[in-house]
Amino acid sequence: MTIINKLRERDIISLITELLEAESKTGSTCRPVVGPGIDDCAVIDMGDSGLLVATTDMLHRKADFPSGMTPYQMGWMSIAVNLSDIAAMGARPVGIMTALGLPLDMEVDDVKELVRGMSDCARRYGTQIIGGDVDRHDELTIVGSALGMVDAGQLATRKGAKPGELVCVTGELGTAGAALEALQQGREPDPEVTEKFYMPVPRIAEGMELAGSGCLSSMMDISDGLALSLHDLAAASGVGFHIRGSDIPVHRSVRDMATVRDMVVNDKVIGDMVIDDKVVDDKVVEVIEDKVVEDQVFEWSVYTGGDFELLFTLDTDCLEKAGKVAQFTVIGKVTASGITIEHNGHITDVEPRGFQQFGDKV
Amino acid sequence: MTIINKLRERDIISLITELLEAESKTGSTCRPVVGPGIDDCAVIDMGDSGLLVATTDMLHRKADFPSGMTPYQMGWMSIAVNLSDIAAMGARPVGIMTALGLPLDMEVDDVKELVRGMSDCARRYGTQIIGGDVDRHDELTIVGSALGMVDAGQLATRKGAKPGELVCVTGELGTAGAALEALQQGREPDPEVTEKFYMPVPRIAEGMELAGSGCLSSMMDISDGLALSLHDLAAASGVGFHIRGSDIPVHRSVRDMATVRDMVVNDKVIGDMVIDDKVVDDKVVEVIEDKVVEDQVFEWSVYTGGDFELLFTLDTDCLEKAGKVAQFTVIGKVTASGITIEHNGHITDVEPRGFQQFGDKV
Repeated sequence: MTIINKLRERDIISLITELLEAESKTGSTCRPVVGPGIDDCAVIDMGDSGLLVATTDMLHRKADFPSGMTPYQMGWMSIAVNLSDIAAMGARPVGIMTALGLPLDMEVDDVKELVRGMSDCARRYGTQIIGGDVDRHDELTIVGSALGMVDAGQLATRKGAKPGELVCVTGELGTAGAALEALQQGREPDPEVTEKFYMPVPRIAEGMELAGSGCLSSMMDISDGLALSLHDLAAASGVGFHIRGSDIPVHRSVRDMATVRDMVVNDKVIGDMVIDDKVVDDKVVEVIEDKVVEDQVFEWSVYTGGDFELLFTLDTDCLEKAGKVAQFTVIGKVTASGITIEHNGHITDVEPRGFQQFGDKV
Repeated sequence: MTIINKLRERDIISLITELLEAESKTGSTCRPVVGPGIDDCAVIDMGDSGLLVATTDMLHRKADFPSGMTPYQMGWMSIAVNLSDIAAMGARPVGIMTALGLPLDMEVDDVKELVRGMSDCARRYGTQIIGGDVDRHDELTIVGSALGMVDAGQLATRKGAKPGELVCVTGELGTAGAALEALQQGREPDPEVTEKFYMPVPRIAEGMELAGSGCLSSMMDISDGLALSLHDLAAASGVGFHIRGSDIPVHRSVRDMATVRDMVVNDKVIGDMVIDDKVVDDKVVEVIEDKVVEDQVFEWSVYTGGDFELLFTLDTDCLEKAGKVAQFTVIGKVTASGITIEHNGHITDVEPRGFQQFGDKV
C-alpha cells in the first residue's frame, strides 16, 4: 500500500487522468474537446455558440492564505486563480460558482468581506458569481469553478509550440516568491508586492486579445511557477525551450527585497568569506552581494509559483502584431528538445520544480 | 460581531445572495438567466445552443461520509448529488469537474477507488469527469461542479406552481433518514436501504423526460428533505401546498427498519404505558406500536434530507401524459397559501426543518 504523499502532484494528476481515460474508452459518451489533466481548462463544444471552457480550483486556509491576508483578499484570490485558467485558454469568462466551506466560528462580517472580494474580482474581469454552495468546515475552504466562452478558431492550448518560435510572458515574475518568503520570515514585504501576491491580476484581457490576434501557437498560465510551466508546455507541444534568465521581467521591488533579504540572511556568510580571504575591499563585497541577489531573484522568478501570468509562444513574424494588442516580454526561444536557461553566464537545465501540493517540497 | 453558526444555512445563502445582487446592480455585466441562491442550478443563455445549467456541491468526510462508506461510494455520491441538481432543471449533463482535497496519508488505492466511483456515476448518467484539481487537505473534501444543457422552452425551475395543480415526487422517501439513524445507533441498516443512501440515484432520465413532456410547472430536488423543499418551492412560486402523508411513497424496508428501531428504542415507553393503564391486551400494544412506527416513518420521509428525488408540480390534465414518460407518485395539491400535511387523521403545518449545514440542528 502506498500513501499519496509518496507521489508528486503531477503524478497524482496523471494517475487520475489515466484512470478516467481507461474508463471513458469503455463507454459510449461523447468526449470533450479537451479532457482532464491536459490543459488549464476542460473544453466542451457548444456548436454554433463556440467552445465552453471550464475550470475548478480549491484554495484553503493553511495552504493558500497567509495569516496577514484579509477575508476580502482571500475572496479575490479564490476567483482570480480560476479566471487565470480561463485567460490561459484565450476565453471570455461567463460565470463563476463558488463552494464555501466555512468554520462555524467565522464572523458574519468576515463572510461578507469574503463574498465582496469574490464578487469584486469577478466583476472587475467582466463576469459574476452565478451560484454556489455553503458548508460548515473545520478549515476555511473555497472552491471556485469558472466558465468561459471562446470561438473555436481562437482557443489557446498548451499544444502547438514549434521550434524557432519566441517564448513570451505577460507582466513581471518573482513577486509571489518574494512576498511569501518575506512573510514566512516575519519581514514586511513591499506593499506593491504584497498586493500583487494577495490580489493577483488574472490576464483576461491579454489572453483574449492575444488569442484573438491569431498569433499564438500555445499558451498556459504559470501559477505553479515558470519552471514547471515550461516543462508542462514542452511536454504538451513536444518541443524544448531555451530561456535567457536576464530577460525575465522582474518587479523593481522584488530586486530590492532580495537585497534586503541577503543583507539579513547572508550577512554571516559574506562576513566569513571576507575574513577567510583576508579581503576587506568594499568592491568585492558588492560583487559577491550582487551575485547573491541575482541568484535569489532568479530562484523566485523561475522556481516559485503564485505569479498568475501567461506564458505563450508565437512566430517571430507575429511579434509586432501581438505587441499591439498586449504588453509582454520575450524571454527565449522554442527549441527541438531540452529545457535550458542562461543565468549569470552559465547555461543549465531548468529543473522540474516549483509549487506542488504533494510529495517532497522543494 | 456575530459568528455564522448563529445563522441557519438558508440565512447565510440569503445574506450572500443579497450581497451579490446589490453588487451586480452597480455593474454592467450581463446577468445570468437564473442567478445565485434562487434555484438548484445557475442558468446561462448560450443562444442557439440552448441554456447552460451549472451547479457546485461540497462534500466532506465528517459531514457527509459515514464511517462505513467505501471510497468508491464516496466518489459516486459526490457526483450523484451534483447530477441531482442538473436533473432538477430538466437538463442533460454535459460534464463534471471535481476538486479533491486529499489527506496526505490517504492510500493511493483508495484514491483510485474514489475516482472510479466518480467516473462510474458520471458515465452511468451519460456524462464524464472533464477536469478538476487535487490539493492536500486535513479532511477529505470533494467538490463537484456539474454542467448541463437544456432547450430554453424545457427549463424547469422552482417558479411556476399554480393553485389547483398536483404535487408529485419520484421514487421513495425516508431511505436516507432510516439509514443514517441506524448507522448512528450502531444498527445495521437493510442492505438495499444502505445502497440507496450511499449511492443515490440522480433522476436524470425522469427530469429530462418530465421537462420534455411540457407538463411541468415547477421542479426541484429534495436533497435537504421534503419539508424544506416544499418551503423553498412555495416561496419561489408564491403558493402553498397540502400534502397527504399517507400518499408519500416509502421503501418497504424503511417501514421494517422503523419497526425494529421502535422495538429497541421504545420498548421501555410502551412497557410503561401498558403497566400504567393496566392493559395487557396484545391488540392495544400493536396499535400503539403501529402509531409509533408510522410517526417514525413520517419523520424520516418528511423531515430528513439525503433522498435525491425530484419534487414537481403539474396540471391534473397532464397527469396521464407525464405518467407515460416517468414513474412518480402524487402526494398532494398546490394551494393558495400555507404548507400543511395530513398525518394520522390530523392536519398540521409543515415545519421548515430538515438538513441544514449551520445553526441549531433539528
